[in-house]
Amino acid sequence: MRTVLKSKTKEITIDTSGPITIIGENINPTRRKKLTEGLLSGRLDYVFELAEAQIAAGADVLDINVGAPGVDEVTMLPLVALAIAERFDVPICLDSSNRAALAAALKVVPGKPLVNSVNGEEASLGALLPIIKEYEAAVIGLTMDDAGIPNDPEVRLSIAGRILERAAQIGIPTEDVVIDPLVLTVGADQKAGRVTLTTIEMVRSEFGININLGASNVSFGLPDRHTVNQAFLALAAGAGASCVITNPEKLTPIIRAADLLLGRDAYATRFIKDFRKRQALGLVPDGTPAKS
Amino acid sequence: MRTVLKSKTKEITIDTSGPITIIGENINPTRRKKLTEGLLSGRLDYVFELAEAQIAAGADVLDINVGAPGVDEVTMLPLVALAIAERFDVPICLDSSNRAALAAALKVVPGKPLVNSVNGEEASLGALLPIIKEYEAAVIGLTMDDAGIPNDPEVRLSIAGRILERAAQIGIPTEDVVIDPLVLTVGADQKAGRVTLTTIEMVRSEFGININLGASNVSFGLPDRHTVNQAFLALAAGAGASCVITNPEKLTPIIRAADLLLGRDAYATRFIKDFRKRQALGLVPDGTPAKS
Repeated sequence: MRTVLKSKTKEITIDTSGPITIIGENINPTRRKKLTEGLLSGRLDYVFELAEAQIAAGADVLDINVGAPGVDEVTMLPLVALAIAERFDVPICLDSSNRAALAAALKVVPGKPLVNSVNGEEASLGALLPIIKEYEAAVIGLTMDDAGIPNDPEVRLSIAGRILERAAQIGIPTEDVVIDPLVLTVGADQKAGRVTLTTIEMVRSEFGININLGASNVSFGLPDRHTVNQAFLALAAGAGASCVITNPEKLTPIIRAADLLLGRDAYATRFIKDFRKRQALGLVPDGTPAKS
Repeated sequence: MRTVLKSKTKEITIDTSGPITIIGENINPTRRKKLTEGLLSGRLDYVFELAEAQIAAGADVLDINVGAPGVDEVTMLPLVALAIAERFDVPICLDSSNRAALAAALKVVPGKPLVNSVNGEEASLGALLPIIKEYEAAVIGLTMDDAGIPNDPEVRLSIAGRILERAAQIGIPTEDVVIDPLVLTVGADQKAGRVTLTTIEMVRSEFGININLGASNVSFGLPDRHTVNQAFLALAAGAGASCVITNPEKLTPIIRAADLLLGRDAYATRFIKDFRKRQALGLVPDGTPAKS
């Protein structure tokens, strides 16, 4: 199944057959004081810097999150999203649960963005699905609801089903819904990884749709997070995830390697090309900038 | 299913439920001139160095291969295997297809070693299964035969079936046969990784036995081999491999991360303990020695 996103002039397709689509996660004020300062003062140079670096490192789509204390999302989400879309011609992933901010951004962003996200709560579905339909955007649906994030893959599957059903009722095509089965840190619960991997397999098998994953929560609180994130991305790709929200500067290589090993990169052309590009950018093989 | 290996006083269990057993591959003269020189002169200090470093880095079992031009395998395989087994009290994996060398080594090695390997050829099965039975060893069976390594997972599965059948006929218990589905480099054939991963799933589903994998062929001829090897080990673990022959100094961290994500490491205890140990050894997180 194919979920098509569009920028001003280009298309990006998230495809259940792969290769994996990378959504760059770095435009997010959490733990980026410099970004918060830029958003508060209306200066976008650091936002542009983050966008450029992520695209160079392999991002197909850019996630834009402006949620920080003191930042007016309704003003800043459309402003930043439009500025990025105009300057970089890349599809946008609007990362907010604020209806007014999303509506304002959907109104101005060119092409077909992805909305990140709705969840299985009635309040979320009722508020956001109508504007997603109105602007013909695609949407990420999280497998959680009023009761939180269930531990049981069957329950996560049923929430995915509910989101798909509500989207269909309002006229959003199934292929425009990408399910994110969510993952919690394995540092707190040893079953957390397995539950998410099983949910990926179940959602893929039941609905045949695209699956997105965030790839950093899983390692929260652990040492050597990079290795845990790498292993998780490879396992998720093997289980059937076709899209990830991650830091491409660190994790593009393992994603390209997984695509290669899953038979989606003839003669390793893309893997090798990426490697050469990273060398030229001064990024060493494991994704850490050589000098920083 | 559990395959029990034994050293002088200890047991190591390869278990289909995990965690993954690591067989250290470094005692192998291929590309190690210093090791060949040691074997030719009968000096074992470098062999002991390789053994010690691998055990410190997480090896549960040590593979011993003495095949090099000018080295008499029939003398040296038992000699090196016995020396390692006595000094380190670790189960041995005897890596040879030479019947006389294996027979001589099986005669002297304490405990219950693993023989690496038989394949589906009549010549291999006929020559080696009787001595494996005689000495009550376990054995790795490669899914290849006179016709080479088949591209079709179904054919690899049928070779695995033949090896298991011949082992059973001669009285070797099924749990003492570990199947290695083999992997070729994805640099030459984009389907190579997928074929192996599918074979793992099929052999596990059909026979429920332990699966071993070598983890470095897959990246032959590619840049950034470490990332490809990491992704492959995670994918193989997800598909059902329970044992790997690899370089533990480089690849133990991704293996521990895969176990953690597959729900086999409560509170990440083993992952964190390993990380601290590697720090103390001066190995940086990605497995490269910090100074070398």
